[in-house]
Amino acid sequence: MSEPLLDRRDRLLGPRLTTFYDEPVHLVRGAGTKLWDAEGREYLDCYNNVPHVGHCHPKVVEAICRQAGTLNTHTRYLHEGIVAFAEDLTATFAEPLNAMTFTCTGSEANDIALRMARAVTGKRGIIATDHTYHGNTDAVSQLSCTNPPPDRWDSVEFVPAPDSYRPITAASWAAHVEAAIRRLEERGHGVAALIICPFFANEGFPDLPEGWVLPAVEAVRRAGGLVIADEVQPGFGRLGTHFWGHEKAGVVPEIVTLGKPMGNGHPVAGVVTERRVMEAFRDTFRYFNTFAGNPVSMAAAQATLDVIREEELQENARAVGEYARDGLRDLAGRHACIGDVRGAGLFLGAELVLDRSEKTPATEFTKKVANALRHKGVLMNFLGIHYNVLKIRPPMVFSRDDADRMLDAVDEALGEVPLA
Amino acid sequence: MSEPLLDRRDRLLGPRLTTFYDEPVHLVRGAGTKLWDAEGREYLDCYNNVPHVGHCHPKVVEAICRQAGTLNTHTRYLHEGIVAFAEDLTATFAEPLNAMTFTCTGSEANDIALRMARAVTGKRGIIATDHTYHGNTDAVSQLSCTNPPPDRWDSVEFVPAPDSYRPITAASWAAHVEAAIRRLEERGHGVAALIICPFFANEGFPDLPEGWVLPAVEAVRRAGGLVIADEVQPGFGRLGTHFWGHEKAGVVPEIVTLGKPMGNGHPVAGVVTERRVMEAFRDTFRYFNTFAGNPVSMAAAQATLDVIREEELQENARAVGEYARDGLRDLAGRHACIGDVRGAGLFLGAELVLDRSEKTPATEFTKKVANALRHKGVLMNFLGIHYNVLKIRPPMVFSRDDADRMLDAVDEALGEVPLA
Repeated sequence: MSEPLLDRRDRLLGPRLTTFYDEPVHLVRGAGTKLWDAEGREYLDCYNNVPHVGHCHPKVVEAICRQAGTLNTHTRYLHEGIVAFAEDLTATFAEPLNAMTFTCTGSEANDIALRMARAVTGKRGIIATDHTYHGNTDAVSQLSCTNPPPDRWDSVEFVPAPDSYRPITAASWAAHVEAAIRRLEERGHGVAALIICPFFANEGFPDLPEGWVLPAVEAVRRAGGLVIADEVQPGFGRLGTHFWGHEKAGVVPEIVTLGKPMGNGHPVAGVVTERRVMEAFRDTFRYFNTFAGNPVSMAAAQATLDVIREEELQENARAVGEYARDGLRDLAGRHACIGDVRGAGLFLGAELVLDRSEKTPATEFTKKVANALRHKGVLMNFLGIHYNVLKIRPPMVFSRDDADRMLDAVDEALGEVPLA
Repeated sequence: MSEPLLDRRDRLLGPRLTTFYDEPVHLVRGAGTKLWDAEGREYLDCYNNVPHVGHCHPKVVEAICRQAGTLNTHTRYLHEGIVAFAEDLTATFAEPLNAMTFTCTGSEANDIALRMARAVTGKRGIIATDHTYHGNTDAVSQLSCTNPPPDRWDSVEFVPAPDSYRPITAASWAAHVEAAIRRLEERGHGVAALIICPFFANEGFPDLPEGWVLPAVEAVRRAGGLVIADEVQPGFGRLGTHFWGHEKAGVVPEIVTLGKPMGNGHPVAGVVTERRVMEAFRDTFRYFNTFAGNPVSMAAAQATLDVIREEELQENARAVGEYARDGLRDLAGRHACIGDVRGAGLFLGAELVLDRSEKTPATEFTKKVANALRHKGVLMNFLGIHYNVLKIRPPMVFSRDDADRMLDAVDEALGEVPLA
């Protein structure tokens, strides 16, 4: 095969399929927080939340192998694995979040969550922020400003993304949500749900005090709507102090959606909700998902949850995250381009600016820094309202040594890449 | 845990989650065409097309284990596995079907297919049969009469399901499709696509001659629409004479969707299409699916395709399918309730009636027969327009001995269950 891999990929999978970095990385192996490319070069993975407990964690791999060799079938037959895992996982949620259903992807989970909210409220309107992402189905891609389908739902309203660096207050955010509710009501939809990532990950994970979202949440509930918390990014202990992002945010949602980290890379996701919501959903829709909740998916998810507990990875996220954040703050003392350092647990980063007084986003610079880091063997990415926030969201087994290596590389890159 | 498994399942996963049979089967192990329940009882699996090359096929299990222990990450990095498999799989399709994208489920594949058709045609209307199923996302559940969302798309039109037992002609079916096109055009949508299972599996897999769908297909194309062939059920050699259902139907669709059998139970699915369609889709949507096309999914799918070839399972489907169909025809000589025997390869069955002259559907009887078979250790199900067609769609390693066991059980059950 003399045709280069990237050309074959473009030809077969279509052009404009995104890759990370100016020079894409061709990976062949992973273990823990490390990845290796086809030339044997090692990378430190500071970005991938899918291998939640570490790339190719032996306990998860072993669970997948054992179950794949024993039985894999759908949920129209009874199987102990799905019931045992659902019991174990729902026990990590506050009451009355004690029912769940499984899907293969976070997109499918959010796609269901919208229907659940609509079924139980009898209303249609959905409110999301203007800088979010909740997945790729036709329905949930309606919630992404960046991916507008040709016929946008009339029943979606966007509100500005929260920000703690150019701060907006909880009261003014609630006023935006209230205005969105009014517009939905005027158009006859009413409000079925406010859907948020409780950590506002794609918005740049602003440092918001606990309870900041409550005025908005209360406005939605007064209008008869529910809250959907998309835990695909902050969930499963990543934030260190709390197992779920909505706990840290100080809100108990009616519906919680789960995704990427749940099976350490195995396609398993789900929705946790109240029993009354699940019943309304099942009364309205004959939902069945062939692969979802199958014995192998459940084995992968159970092993992942077991490893989080056994290796105390939530506490590791808290301790190493704090250490890494302190390190970034030290770097801010030497690099004026670091306008803000923020995050929680092993979900942290730095907002890069051209000048601290005006807080002018250093968007192009941030992109160059991410690419420079890739060439230094440190994989991270950037996001946020202005795409100028370095995003550090590594596997949960990230160590202090890993943090030191990451910090050294960021220090170097910020010193080498010209700011303008 | 003293609470029975079914009660725990209802409590955690919601009531009205469907199970097969009056007394659900609690499975613990599978191999080839066999399944075992928690009491050690053996079942012959005559129904499950997910474990396409047999439950827990060692080659597929080994491929999953090896890759899960080596690397599993998303497609924003380059990986050889996805490109090699896409090359291998697209080569099984006629030109110009030479581009593809991956998803985790057939539902996601159809969800994309609708957007592809709309992006490339600039039109909105979708035509489906009134007894089909194309998945469970909010968008594709619009195509199922049985699962009506509260706000149905105005841009979907249904046509009657084809039938070869109470036959409708190709010309009259085309006239139904033409009328649907006119209604879509009158409402300003135009027709983006006709979506069909080319074997009309859920409709009861009528025996239609090659080319039967062509007059309807030509009408859709004249109106500027495309054809989407949902190969989730008939694909990957199941029909014996052809690798893909649309080949047997004598039509080259613009878009083909793949699902269940593709990874032998691993959640992998996809869409194969023309390059121009893929480009229009990628130009319109920023589609990315984290788990889709990941190295483990690709290893599972590649191993499944390899096994189909190495074990000559398409030919096995043809030969054993013919043998089983002949056996059902013999049974029809002894059981007047068998009104029709039909199917292709290892996708076959019998339509059960109260009387052959009036062809009155024996719907309740068929359900009782399926339940009687379950208690005889033979798992099959029923479907069709009148839910009176025994559906036999076993793993592709189904042998003549398996067919004999199945036929004996059907013979017994038809003799034991009272017809009315």
